[in-house]
This record gives sequence, C-alpha cells and structure tokens, in this order.
Amino acid sequence: MKALVKTQPTRGAELLDIDIPQVGPTDLLVKVQAAAICGTDNHIYSWDPWAESRLTLPMVFGHEFAGEVVEAGASIAGYAVGDMVAGETHIPCLQCYQCRTGRQHTCENMRIIGVHTDGAFAEYAILPQSCAWKLAPGTDPALGAIMEPIGVACNGLFKDRIDGLSVAIIGCGPIGIFGGQLAQAAGARHVTMTDVNPYRLDLARRVLPEATVLHAANDDVLQAVLDGTEGRGVDVAIELSGSQAGTAQAFDILAKGGRVSLVGLPSNPITLEMTSAIIYREAVVYGSTGRLMWDTWYKVDALIRSGRFDPMPVITHTFPLASFDEALQLTLSANAGKVILLP
Amino acid sequence: MKALVKTQPTRGAELLDIDIPQVGPTDLLVKVQAAAICGTDNHIYSWDPWAESRLTLPMVFGHEFAGEVVEAGASIAGYAVGDMVAGETHIPCLQCYQCRTGRQHTCENMRIIGVHTDGAFAEYAILPQSCAWKLAPGTDPALGAIMEPIGVACNGLFKDRIDGLSVAIIGCGPIGIFGGQLAQAAGARHVTMTDVNPYRLDLARRVLPEATVLHAANDDVLQAVLDGTEGRGVDVAIELSGSQAGTAQAFDILAKGGRVSLVGLPSNPITLEMTSAIIYREAVVYGSTGRLMWDTWYKVDALIRSGRFDPMPVITHTFPLASFDEALQLTLSANAGKVILLP
Amino acid sequence: MKALVKTQPTRGAELLDIDIPQVGPTDLLVKVQAAAICGTDNHIYSWDPWAESRLTLPMVFGHEFAGEVVEAGASIAGYAVGDMVAGETHIPCLQCYQCRTGRQHTCENMRIIGVHTDGAFAEYAILPQSCAWKLAPGTDPALGAIMEPIGVACNGLFKDRIDGLSVAIIGCGPIGIFGGQLAQAAGARHVTMTDVNPYRLDLARRVLPEATVLHAANDDVLQAVLDGTEGRGVDVAIELSGSQAGTAQAFDILAKGGRVSLVGLPSNPITLEMTSAIIYREAVVYGSTGRLMWDTWYKVDALIRSGRFDPMPVITHTFPLASFDEALQLTLSANAGKVILLP
Amino acid sequence: MKALVKTQPTRGAELLDIDIPQVGPTDLLVKVQAAAICGTDNHIYSWDPWAESRLTLPMVFGHEFAGEVVEAGASIAGYAVGDMVAGETHIPCLQCYQCRTGRQHTCENMRIIGVHTDGAFAEYAILPQSCAWKLAPGTDPALGAIMEPIGVACNGLFKDRIDGLSVAIIGCGPIGIFGGQLAQAAGARHVTMTDVNPYRLDLARRVLPEATVLHAANDDVLQAVLDGTEGRGVDVAIELSGSQAGTAQAFDILAKGGRVSLVGLPSNPITLEMTSAIIYREAVVYGSTGRLMWDTWYKVDALIRSGRFDPMPVITHTFPLASFDEALQLTLSANAGKVILLP
Repeated sequence: MKALVKTQPTRGAELLDIDIPQVGPTDLLVKVQAAAICGTDNHIYSWDPWAESRLTLPMVFGHEFAGEVVEAGASIAGYAVGDMVAGETHIPCLQCYQCRTGRQHTCENMRIIGVHTDGAFAEYAILPQSCAWKLAPGTDPALGAIMEPIGVACNGLFKDRIDGLSVAIIGCGPIGIFGGQLAQAAGARHVTMTDVNPYRLDLARRVLPEATVLHAANDDVLQAVLDGTEGRGVDVAIELSGSQAGTAQAFDILAKGGRVSLVGLPSNPITLEMTSAIIYREAVVYGSTGRLMWDTWYKVDALIRSGRFDPMPVITHTFPLASFDEALQLTLSANAGKVILLP
Repeated sequence: MKALVKTQPTRGAELLDIDIPQVGPTDLLVKVQAAAICGTDNHIYSWDPWAESRLTLPMVFGHEFAGEVVEAGASIAGYAVGDMVAGETHIPCLQCYQCRTGRQHTCENMRIIGVHTDGAFAEYAILPQSCAWKLAPGTDPALGAIMEPIGVACNGLFKDRIDGLSVAIIGCGPIGIFGGQLAQAAGARHVTMTDVNPYRLDLARRVLPEATVLHAANDDVLQAVLDGTEGRGVDVAIELSGSQAGTAQAFDILAKGGRVSLVGLPSNPITLEMTSAIIYREAVVYGSTGRLMWDTWYKVDALIRSGRFDPMPVITHTFPLASFDEALQLTLSANAGKVILLP
Repeated sequence: MKALVKTQPTRGAELLDIDIPQVGPTDLLVKVQAAAICGTDNHIYSWDPWAESRLTLPMVFGHEFAGEVVEAGASIAGYAVGDMVAGETHIPCLQCYQCRTGRQHTCENMRIIGVHTDGAFAEYAILPQSCAWKLAPGTDPALGAIMEPIGVACNGLFKDRIDGLSVAIIGCGPIGIFGGQLAQAAGARHVTMTDVNPYRLDLARRVLPEATVLHAANDDVLQAVLDGTEGRGVDVAIELSGSQAGTAQAFDILAKGGRVSLVGLPSNPITLEMTSAIIYREAVVYGSTGRLMWDTWYKVDALIRSGRFDPMPVITHTFPLASFDEALQLTLSANAGKVILLP
Repeated sequence: MKALVKTQPTRGAELLDIDIPQVGPTDLLVKVQAAAICGTDNHIYSWDPWAESRLTLPMVFGHEFAGEVVEAGASIAGYAVGDMVAGETHIPCLQCYQCRTGRQHTCENMRIIGVHTDGAFAEYAILPQSCAWKLAPGTDPALGAIMEPIGVACNGLFKDRIDGLSVAIIGCGPIGIFGGQLAQAAGARHVTMTDVNPYRLDLARRVLPEATVLHAANDDVLQAVLDGTEGRGVDVAIELSGSQAGTAQAFDILAKGGRVSLVGLPSNPITLEMTSAIIYREAVVYGSTGRLMWDTWYKVDALIRSGRFDPMPVITHTFPLASFDEALQLTLSANAGKVILLP
C-alpha cells in the first residue's frame, strides 16, 4: 500500500509502498477514506525537538482519520467488516489507575497512533478496538476524520458548563473555531475570538459571524471584553496559542471566579503573577489534553446531531495523499483551516 | 389605586380602590407596568385547599411583574427612582442557614409576594430590595414580568448540564415551553415535549418546530424516545404535570444514569416502583422550586442576550387589569400560553 | 470440587461435587479463600420471586469473595498465578454507552456472578478480568470478600461530599454499618443510625459508639435529628430498608437541599408526598446500585489505608462451607452482621 | 479604649487611647475577647509594599477576632447584646454580581477589616452584620478568633472532595497545619506536609503525628510521595508557601488529574512548564482566597463539632495586647504557631 513514512531525522517525509499491516487479535484494519493534518504532524514533518524526543523511525504518521473496516481481529466484538469508524489517537493500557477511573486519555502507559505506532497517512491503518468509534453509515469521511480535533476543543471547553456564560477563545486555528462553534451551540452568552494571523481571523469571522473576532495585539481585547460583560470579564477562556502573551491575556480578561482551560502546548515556560491572575480572582485553571473516552466523542456526536454545530466549513482544503508536501507546507504556514488528505 | 383583591374565601376576586402601600426602609415602590398570571393565581382565584391553607384575607395577589421604581426606602442602595425592575417572588429572611449558604429560595422563614404580602395585580406594588432585579432601560415590561416563570423552567432544567443531552419536557404549559426553548438554546441534542391538552400541544409545535411534540397518552412516547436515542432513553426529564401518569412516564423514558427534575406540584401522593424507576437505573431526582437568587436570573438574562432564546411567543394574550375575570378563566381553562395583565 | 448449587426451584441448596470450571481467554480461575453471604444469596436460597425471575438452574451462587489466582486465561494481562484478588459482581459488556462513559456498573447488557454465571460458594470460581480487583499480598481473605458490600455503602454515601455533613443511615445491616463508619471516616458532623431489629441496633451501637443509634419506630427519630441539627434536619440520608416507612422517614428528617440515596430495594411500590418530601425541600435523590468500576474500589481501599475505617468488626460469624444451611438461616434471621463462608 | 494603631508609614505600631467607635445602623459593637495575628498584620507592622499600597493611616489593624456584642445598630436583626460572635474579614457590598451569586468573598467592591476600616487589636471593634458569625455561648474566644484562618485552609482544601485522596500541604504555618488536620478529619488517605522552617516542621510533627512531615529542600519529597501512592503522586496539593520552589513542587508531586489549590500569595511572578505541569497532567488549579460566606464557616463549625478536628494545639503563644511588639516580632520570625493577643 501507499503510506507516508517518516524515514529520516530531517525535515520531510516519503510516500512509499509498504506492506499492509498485520491485524492483531484486538485490532481492526481500516481502509483510510480521509485523514486530517494535525499540528503534531507538522512537528513530525519539520522534525523539531518535540518529534525527535518521541519518534523511533521509520514511522507512518497521521492519526486523525476515518474509514471502513476491512478486517477484524479474532477477539473483536461489536465491529464488523463494512463498518465505518473514526480513530481515537490515544491507545490506553486499560490496566492503570487512570484507565480504571474514567481517564483513559491520561493513561500512565499511553501510546499514540502515528507517534508510537504506525498511523493513518496511508491506504490502510491499524485501529485497536480500544480506539475505535463507530460512525453512522454514510457519514462523510472528512467529518469522521475531524471528530478527533473537534474533541480536543470539546474537552477543553466543557470542563464545566457553558450555558449563559461569556467565552473567549485565544487562538483561531481549527480547534479554536470548533471551540467557538461549540460554545455558541451550547448557549454561550457571547464568544470573543482572538488571534494574530490574518487568515485565521478572517476564517473565524466567516464561520462565526455572531462572535467578536479581534486581533490579539492590535485590538483592545480587554476593553472589548469588559464592555460586553458589564465590566466583569469573561467567564471562560480557552487558551490555544501556547504563548506567553496569550496565556497572560486569558487571565487578564477573566472574571472573578472564571475558568481558563489550557489546551495549546507552550514550548517555553510561562510566567504569571499568580496573586492577581489566579488567587485573588479565585480562577480555576484546567489542563486539557486529548478527549475523554468516550464521553467527549458522544458529546461531539450529539452536538452535531442537535443541528446547532456544523464543523465542515472549517475544512478549507483537500489534497490527494500524493500532494502531502504541499498540504503540510500549507498547514505549517497557518494559512489554512483544517486540511484533509485523501489516500 | 386600583388593585385586584381577594376578599372572600370563595371563588373570584374584586377590583377595588385601595391606598398605595407605604414604603419601608428597605422597600421599593414599583408602578406596575405588566403582570403575568401564574398557576398560583389560579389557586387563589378558585380558592382551592392550597390557597385556603396559605392566605389570610384580604390580600392583593399576583407576583410575576415588572415596572418602574417610583419611591425608594431610606436604607436602599443601588436602586433609584426611574429604574426598571422585575420582581422575585420569594422574600428571604437573609439570616437562616439556607439564606447564608446560597439558597435564599428555600429560606426557612420564606414569605411569598401575593400570598403572604400584598402583590402585583395593582397599579403599585411593594418590592423588597432583597427581591429586586434591575432590568435594562427599555426592556419590554411583559418580558420583565415573565422572567420569574422563565426562571422556574431554568432552575429545573439546569440542575446540571444540558449540552448534548436528550431532554423530555412533561407538560407544555408556559414553563414547559420555556424549558424546551432553554434546552435547545443550551445545546440539547433533541427535545421531546408531551401534554394532553390540544391547545398546549399546538402552541408547543408552533414555538418549538424542531422539537418532537407528542400526546402523552395517545402517542407512543416511550417508543419515540427510544427511537431517537439509540434505545437508551432521555438523559433529562422535566416533570411539570404534577400527575401520577406524568411522573411515572418521566422515569419510564429515562436513560440509565439520567436525571429527572420534579417541578410540577402534585396535589396527591405519587406512587413509584423505586427499584426499577430509580435504583437500578441510578437515576438522579431533583426537587425544584423557585429560582436560585440570583444565579437563575443572571442565567435567564444571559440566555436572552445570547440571541438563542426568545420567550415572547409564549405570551398569547394580554388584557387590561379590569378584564381579570376573563383572563383568569382563560388561564384556568389552560387554553392559553402566558397571559399578561396591564394595570 | 465442592460447590453450593441451587438445583431446584424451592427453598434450599445442595453442596455437590462438580468439575472445576474451564478458564476462557479473559478469565481468571480463583481458589476461593473466603466468601460472604449477601441478601441476594438469601433470595436465591429462599427462592422468592426476585430469584425465580432471574436464575436459570442449576447455578452455583455466591458472589462476594476473595482468593488466589491459580490459572490465567490466554489473553490475560496484569494478573498472574499467585495474585490475590477480590471479585466485582457485575460483569460489564464494555461496548455499550454506559460502559464507555464510566458507568460499567449500569451496563445495558449486565450479567451478574452467582446469578447469571456460576458463583463463588465453591472451592474455585471463574473471575472475568473485567471484574478482578487485585489485593495487596497478605490481605485477610475475609476483608477481601467484604470489599464488594462495603462498596455498595460507599457508592450510596459518596454520591457527593460528606465532610461536615449530618448523615442518617436508615437500616443497620452490614451495609448500613459500613456506611456509618465510612461517613465518620470522611468527616461527617454526626451520624444517626436507625433500624427496628434489636440485634442490628445492638451491633450498630457496639461498632459505632459515637453515632446516635435509634429504633426507627419506637424512638422519636425526627425530634432527635432536629435537636442535633439546629432544627434543620440531616444533610444526607441513606435508605437501606427498602420499606415504605424507611423511605418516608428518610425524607421527613431531611434538611432543605439535602440528599437521599436510595440503596435498599423495595419489593413493593413506594408512595410519597412529592411536593413536601422532594419539591419544596429541593431534595436530591440518588438511585444507587453496585459500585463504580473502579472508582468505588479505589475509594474503599484508600479509606481502609487511611486508618480511619476498619470494617472487620462487622463480620460477626464465620462458617465452613459445609455449614451453609446454618449460615444462610442465620443471615435470613437478620441476627447477624456479615457472615463468612470458608470453602 | 486601648487600640493598636498604625500611625506612621514605617515599621511598628502604637498602643493608643482612642474613642470607642460609633455604631452604624447595620453594625455590631464587639468587646474583643481574643484576637489572632495574621500574616497581613505582619505586612502592616513591617510596612512593606503590600501594606503601603492598601492602607490609609491612621488605622487600627487586626481582623481575626471574637468577642461579645455590647451594642447593636438600629437595623440589626438576629443578633443581640450578649451574643458571642467571631468576625469575617471581608466586608461585601451585597449588590454586585459576585455578592449576588454566592461569592461575597470575591466582591467587586471588597473592603477588609483592619485594612480599609478600623480593626480588632483593640478593646472594642465594629463588626458589620454582613461579617458576623454567631458563636455558641461559652466558646473559647481564642477558638472564635482562629475560625477565620481555619476558614482559609478550609476554602483551599475543600475546592472538591477529600475522602480517600492523598494530600500534600506545602507550608507548615498555622494554615498549613489546620489544612492537614482538616484533610485527616475528612478522610484523606494520607497527608504529606513540607516546609523549610525547623520550628514549623516540629510543630507539624507534634500536631499531626500520622502525617509524613518533610523538609521541602533536604528531603526527597517526590520520592516519598511516589512511594506512598503506588507511583501516582498526590491527588491534592495545597500551596501555602507563595514561593517559586513550593509552587513548582506542588505540580511535580501531583498525580495525573490531580488538583492544586494556590493559597499562599507570591510576591513575585511564578514560572511554570505548563505543558508538563498542568496540560498533559490535566491538572486542575484553584485560586483560593478568603472564605465562602458562609459555607466555609458552617463547614469549619461542623468539623469542630464532629470531634475529629481540634485546632487549639496550633495556638502556641498568648500575649496581652500591650506586648504587641513581642508578639508581632515572634510571628515575623515564623517561630510560632498561631499567636493570640488579649485586649
């Protein structure tokens, strides 16, 4: 089969012909119908320290995907050839304290598809049953492929309730826009979105016409938030930039008693005036990673079914797998929403 | 001033000329601009056992209202003549354990406007500061008057989160329809509404075209719910009928782990098979009365501001105060949504 | 091996020689070192309608047990021969919505050890890996055997926090006494225990000298509770009697905003004045069954490790398996705490 | 009356004869029977930047106190001359969003006794009714005086449940020791306490013999925590040091999914590796200040009544008010537990 393989510890990747992977007793073999590019894939393609410290080469990468089951391992129950599935990225051990108390997504022995095991930028991919989400027949494979990143937004946003609350999203990449849409679907009083990238600000304005979309540095975000909240600040801030400025701003604009979800991964340490940012404000800060298995997936599915959340406009580009260089350079430039590869 | 007074322990009421009430040090005097009819007012008008056990006559009744402050007591801070306000019905003592732990609405020494103190079916009404909610200038007085019953729906619905959940509302009176609207605004996956009254079923269908509106007895509600929830049942049921059949149905259609809010007040004891209805199902049951002061009011306000919740279509009739007999007989017939009296 | 088998649809059971069960790929074979008698076993022994509607005979019964792993199925990971384990009774399907959202104990396709599959009143028992709890080496097998019923108390009690709250336990059987102990260990302000059985009242007084132990019918429970709570009522009531009187009393003595966990299984419908019992009181009612897998087990283990909870005094009798008739008649009489059988 | 007055913007204070304060309509006049020294008082006595930016001199300071009501303002209800009361430090406006949604302790218009209004290191002090907590007759005034700082520990600790959880307290000052005691009373699995001050480590060991008390720098705290938690880390960390090292350690020793309460006020910005400290760990961080009014007070009271929490051994010294210099220098040295002044 064709597969995009990271073979060398340098920038780039190679489209190779390799064997279709062997199915273990608890695995599904999936014919990949759509795969989406994640920031993690950009780390791997660029080969930065994040990737270098995690991957053992060669490795097929890509982990946001959907497709059709073409083979099921001997011990599989509940899935059959012909089923359409999407993939959860985190492979849980199912034995540790985290896995046994509803937190498989923070498994003590976590492996990640496309990082620790061969992934989905390929014609076929292995999906352990513990990572399989069954899709309704006829689901658009591209929608299936983006349920995983929608879940990242969903997990960060719904640490607690949203109904009637003011929400700020710091970062207008795909996860930020999904977050803004989910907040509106769940009855947020108002959504404020910030970024510094003109393409992403423009995309946010088009997808979320009801939201207030501001340039994080050039606009007076604090004043705009105070004006829209009787001077109180937002109840919820979702930090997706991973930057010092974005993190500080998330607290600056926060109401007393408000909450911040930290989702974007900072490459560097972050410095905060804890007394004013968090303590006197009695802020609540949630680290957020991955998706609750499977509460988050059910919630994403339910909000799509509600008719109040349509993530498809966030997909801005679709490429054949052979155009992977173009697709990955586009996502690295940040001048794109969600980008789909078709094997 | 003109006031609708319950003078005799029999059906009916009298529109009398009485003195404008005296303002105490922590009271506001409000010129009533709109008042809405509540089921409680029907009890009082009809003089049933509920009313007989609570009222000392004569009493001006009516308690859902909005208007303009025309006089403020000597110790009042934060309110001024000319402010527009809506009235919370429950007068808390502010000293008891309930009041001092965020539960003024279940005060140990509760008094109720229009039941224990003169109410708002009058040209002027006393509003204690502890019951005053300031409205934005220019608010439609009818909207101000219905914030209190919207709050009843809001308190019952938002005992926990709604986003992505399946909701059933047992009873399509005004509170039920508000509840269905609030659930949709807060991202419910789907809303099912039931009643047995044709007028109310029709009103629900008009106001909530996305909901499934069913006759509680003639339609197969359980099957419809199971069909719409992959066989699981609804996650949330709001019981507003106060009836044996409605309460039993709320549990019959409930998913394992789901929740029921009991809001409608049964006149008679209710009998349940606890083992199947609640225990094996691990259902959670919430008694719900009144509104959290003031969390519920802020939430109602915020959901109106979100643009996703418009309660005004639930108001079906408006009468001058002098037509009180016609208005109260209409609400007693249940062939109405919310009915407004204009003093 | 020796096993206690229910062979006939009549009162009683037979101690037979049967084959040691075969181990499936995800099963452990456990040499049973201690088994405890549950109320369910009394239903089966007596052959009442509960048992008749559930069991297909013949069936080895008994499900509260601990022992040593003597064989592990081919697909087992994380358990080895020689490990000491306790058994969770509920066998989850691991595929349904309940199982995939942290609620395996209310699995849509639940099977129960000793009811739907052969149980633990035997020298050897099959324990599916999905039901295995590893015990520390050297744990007293009797302690391991009672972790399951301790978990029933734990699940009912800890639906929400206990610290600083007044707790009433309606029923002084073993689960009630465990509940009282757990409440004290978790910082309850005070614990009130009620029952009508003199043996159980006496046992409660001995095990819980700090608690107030009252006869549910002969003592003025309401007055005692009001006296001890500044007239407010208890914050938490745990209903274990399954009776009309006990359920009504749980609400009568409840503070506004308090919570009731319904754990005892009523054989008959229960009738309540919902308006006063639940709605005006804004009570919260939790159905409670089984144990959260595995949060409850970890909590029981942690509270034992804390040194503040010692359940062993609740074990009042120990019999060899051959004396099963004596043991089951004793538990049926209710003149016992927890009773252990040694195969 | 005698009062300790901060008159000059320099280190020190003066014991002066001043007028007994005038009682406003909603005030109580309290004859102070005991007052405790808080870190805030050390800031004021030392006149550091924290104090300089907040106080307008002259000011009577001291705010942790208890005493007898000797006069009640004209509008006071529920308190009478002869009542014994303790003082809450935070004076809420009762009008803002925070005050009206159960968060008076983070009032938008907060004033603080002993900082913005004359305090309690005096023979008499004004206590607004909104800050009065009634004590049972016969309460030890010293116990009444320390309920406020116990409440600081209580608010930080009980952001969520404690039962069965592993707890670390970073800082063995009085609030830390109260926190360790409260955690044990509420069923913590185990408590680890750290500090660098020998006096405080010794005091912690004496008051909390069941806890593990470690030197934060010289002992291997991480290893000790991992050894005691099957390698997982603590579930709850309470940060009281306000230091970079203490804050970093709170996260280093934290389990995945664990929580940190930030209570100690850092004078300088804190730098954290957010990705590892909070995000991948899915930690929850709570800013914590003051006490919930009045949930925290009720909880402190209830835990004292439970018999499982005795804070009196944390009081190590008592001085007459005239020895204020000695007392404040002692608390500045940190070689003391809680120190009481007797006017």
